[in-house]
Amino acid sequence: MKLEEIAKYLHGSFSGDGNIEISGPAKIESATEGQITFLANPKYKHFLAQTKASAVIVDNNIKDLEIPHIKVDNAYMGFLFVLKLFTPERELSFKGISQNAQINSTAVIGNDCNIAPFVYIGSDCAVGNNCTFYPGVVILDNVKIGDNCIFYPNVSIREDCVVGNNAIFHNGVVVGSDGFGFAPKGDSYEKIPQLGNVIIGNNVEIGANSTIDRATMGSTIIKDGVKLDNLIQIAHNCIVGENTVMAAQAGVAGSTEIGRNVTIGGQVGVSGHIKVNDRTVVAAQSGISKDTEPNSILFGTPALPIMQRKRIDVSLRHLPEYVKRINQLENELIEIREELKAKNGK
Amino acid sequence: MKLEEIAKYLHGSFSGDGNIEISGPAKIESATEGQITFLANPKYKHFLAQTKASAVIVDNNIKDLEIPHIKVDNAYMGFLFVLKLFTPERELSFKGISQNAQINSTAVIGNDCNIAPFVYIGSDCAVGNNCTFYPGVVILDNVKIGDNCIFYPNVSIREDCVVGNNAIFHNGVVVGSDGFGFAPKGDSYEKIPQLGNVIIGNNVEIGANSTIDRATMGSTIIKDGVKLDNLIQIAHNCIVGENTVMAAQAGVAGSTEIGRNVTIGGQVGVSGHIKVNDRTVVAAQSGISKDTEPNSILFGTPALPIMQRKRIDVSLRHLPEYVKRINQLENELIEIREELKAKNGK
Amino acid sequence: MKLEEIAKYLHGSFSGDGNIEISGPAKIESATEGQITFLANPKYKHFLAQTKASAVIVDNNIKDLEIPHIKVDNAYMGFLFVLKLFTPERELSFKGISQNAQINSTAVIGNDCNIAPFVYIGSDCAVGNNCTFYPGVVILDNVKIGDNCIFYPNVSIREDCVVGNNAIFHNGVVVGSDGFGFAPKGDSYEKIPQLGNVIIGNNVEIGANSTIDRATMGSTIIKDGVKLDNLIQIAHNCIVGENTVMAAQAGVAGSTEIGRNVTIGGQVGVSGHIKVNDRTVVAAQSGISKDTEPNSILFGTPALPIMQRKRIDVSLRHLPEYVKRINQLENELIEIREELKAKNGK
Repeated sequence: MKLEEIAKYLHGSFSGDGNIEISGPAKIESATEGQITFLANPKYKHFLAQTKASAVIVDNNIKDLEIPHIKVDNAYMGFLFVLKLFTPERELSFKGISQNAQINSTAVIGNDCNIAPFVYIGSDCAVGNNCTFYPGVVILDNVKIGDNCIFYPNVSIREDCVVGNNAIFHNGVVVGSDGFGFAPKGDSYEKIPQLGNVIIGNNVEIGANSTIDRATMGSTIIKDGVKLDNLIQIAHNCIVGENTVMAAQAGVAGSTEIGRNVTIGGQVGVSGHIKVNDRTVVAAQSGISKDTEPNSILFGTPALPIMQRKRIDVSLRHLPEYVKRINQLENELIEIREELKAKNGK
Repeated sequence: MKLEEIAKYLHGSFSGDGNIEISGPAKIESATEGQITFLANPKYKHFLAQTKASAVIVDNNIKDLEIPHIKVDNAYMGFLFVLKLFTPERELSFKGISQNAQINSTAVIGNDCNIAPFVYIGSDCAVGNNCTFYPGVVILDNVKIGDNCIFYPNVSIREDCVVGNNAIFHNGVVVGSDGFGFAPKGDSYEKIPQLGNVIIGNNVEIGANSTIDRATMGSTIIKDGVKLDNLIQIAHNCIVGENTVMAAQAGVAGSTEIGRNVTIGGQVGVSGHIKVNDRTVVAAQSGISKDTEPNSILFGTPALPIMQRKRIDVSLRHLPEYVKRINQLENELIEIREELKAKNGK
Repeated sequence: MKLEEIAKYLHGSFSGDGNIEISGPAKIESATEGQITFLANPKYKHFLAQTKASAVIVDNNIKDLEIPHIKVDNAYMGFLFVLKLFTPERELSFKGISQNAQINSTAVIGNDCNIAPFVYIGSDCAVGNNCTFYPGVVILDNVKIGDNCIFYPNVSIREDCVVGNNAIFHNGVVVGSDGFGFAPKGDSYEKIPQLGNVIIGNNVEIGANSTIDRATMGSTIIKDGVKLDNLIQIAHNCIVGENTVMAAQAGVAGSTEIGRNVTIGGQVGVSGHIKVNDRTVVAAQSGISKDTEPNSILFGTPALPIMQRKRIDVSLRHLPEYVKRINQLENELIEIREELKAKNGK
């Protein structure tokens, strides 16, 4: 592949001979002739003098380079995409629809789908084109799935759920499990019917073993472009807005609405029946128990604006010492009172 | 279905013509003639004037209604149960025992069970009547299961465990994995044998991808009526008492006993070898590290009575300002001392 | 089995007739002649007078025993190992390689492996000797596995990962899911290619439903002897050092390096791109956001040395009362100032 073509693919500008043939990517210290490398950290610039690479990907702000190079916004990311270009795509090696899959005769499967052994697809399902079902995936009745979706091993989706285009669900994801709802009945509990479903938009990625519960009535909704990490819990009737990102082990309780472009850190807990507004950022392990302002940056349990919480944490670290100072102040006041009393007594 | 019949089904009282034929439920603003709706929030009472519904389900305390209605303790819940009544039950569309399931010849399966493709049931298992095994369920040797149980996709239960009647295990639940026990052996660890099992009572529901470890010796015990949400961890040798409810991502360490009718919030952690007494309530994200009093309501890490913890949190928010006040007090005391000294010097 | 043989198996010393034939283990209060019991807690020593057991396992420091006994470092543990000796090993009752497993013809399987129904093994995989694959296990292409490994039901391992000898992966473990990496692209996100793999050393045990993500480039590495509990998240490019132990629901963010013989409590969160040094101990629910000193013992969010954090927590409990004392000090100072003013005015 020519340097010029790689530059185009990266939406970068190149300098040097665009016709140089690039055989692949390599690290700066081990690259050989014909390979392309990258320089993300200016402090490694001295390596450039010694590298045998034929070209280098650099950040836009790097100057005075003699070696043929491509300038991009983020050299590390650019290198990753070149690496991907030269790496054979990982895909299900099983092609076509396995005799060992069980697909209900009423299910409609689009073109160019690969369905591995031990996949189950229930009645009245509809699957778009170019979808991949890895082994152990279970799709129950009346699930609707768009185009270009990937379901990794042991994903399971319960009845009546809807998944848009370009979904990537990692191993063990559960979609459509019953919401957690029980009505007290004497000392015990009666199950509240969970009659709704889950609707997932386009371009959604969900991490391994995460769980998305169905709505009691209506729908739990995950909107376009949402990215969820592993082991996340989204409870019944939640709405997660466009392009919101949540890190691993975060959990959202029932009927909460999360806005768009929200960023939620790992192990964060969000209470039920609240609204996390657009572009809120929540630091890891925080607990959100009331509505948030748009664009706020929050930390702690209960969550506060991050600078306030950090000032509190700094003060808190010295609390035992403040207590000593309060004790001493009290003792001094007693002394002063006695001194004044003695004076008055004179 | 007649209004009178619905009232009876809901254990409610009705007013108006009990013979009105109800065709189904609908929201108050979209209901048409023949449908039943509900009013849970008095502030929406004005909708009643315009609704085309033929009847309405209301809370017991609503007064002065002209429209035919059913009074119940909780109108929203009543409506849900009516909705369920008119909604076809979701169930495994596969009926009978699949040729593509693998059931050991020594396993005894009760009547009216449905066993989907790709289900594995090991040797010496016993399953009661009317149980459903969704695709991908794995039941290892010598597991005993009661009647009317539902095992959703990819549930797995290891050897020698016992499950009562009416269990509902959601997708990916693991029961009977080894307890986490290791003895130091030099710098590394030796696995402590995990020889016990898990015993689960009647009417237990366990949420998706939750894990219940087997006991080292004896049994990990989940008693009747326990309801566990998703992604919960119950460690080896725990006992969870009757009708205890735990929200998502909570975790209980080994050998802890949780009483009956305890309520544990999401992401709560409970230490090992303690006793959480009956009817304790623990707010979300708390950490319980010692025995709790019955009926206590706890919050925070370490957990304190909730009102105490909330007072502390309010004070904490002003801590940096208290520190300033302490500084100022100290400065003022210095001034006063100097003033007194000056006076004495006179 | 003779008492002498049991003593040898436990690496303990025995006293009494080594030829006594032991038929099995039992609790001290229910043991009958021929059985062996244990005494771990000296306060139960009086039971020894009444037990019908023929021998007892005791801690090394127990003295003045007449009953035949074996002394070991830890009597409870010793008893467990004897119990294990007399308990039939739990193992997959299915033997050999199931016709209902799907194994790619290019996969190489060692000797004495058992592969259950509904197991999928992809192309170019290599499996050592004496491995067990329970039902529902999915191994994707080009995975390399050592000897004596156990994969419990529904474990899944994605492409190109490497697992050493003696691995035990409990139900639902996921290895090699994509790292969580996205580059902002306008308001939405572009997936960063996740081209690396996961390399797992020897003697590693991973708890149920835990997830280990593959590296972006290079490898996520779990070194020899690591023990992970259930529902743990290890993100892309992490390194977990030899013999490190993590309790349930802990999570480690991307590119963090954890040293050897580290102990991490339940629900702990560790930030990305930091180093947790050797033999660090982190108490449950803590949040580690910067590098740790070797051998440090940490607690809280943000984590502090445990004694410091505990002193702070004690002070914190009294914070509202300190606030009252500050108020009172301020009032008293006002009084004193007025008194001084009055004096001056005189």
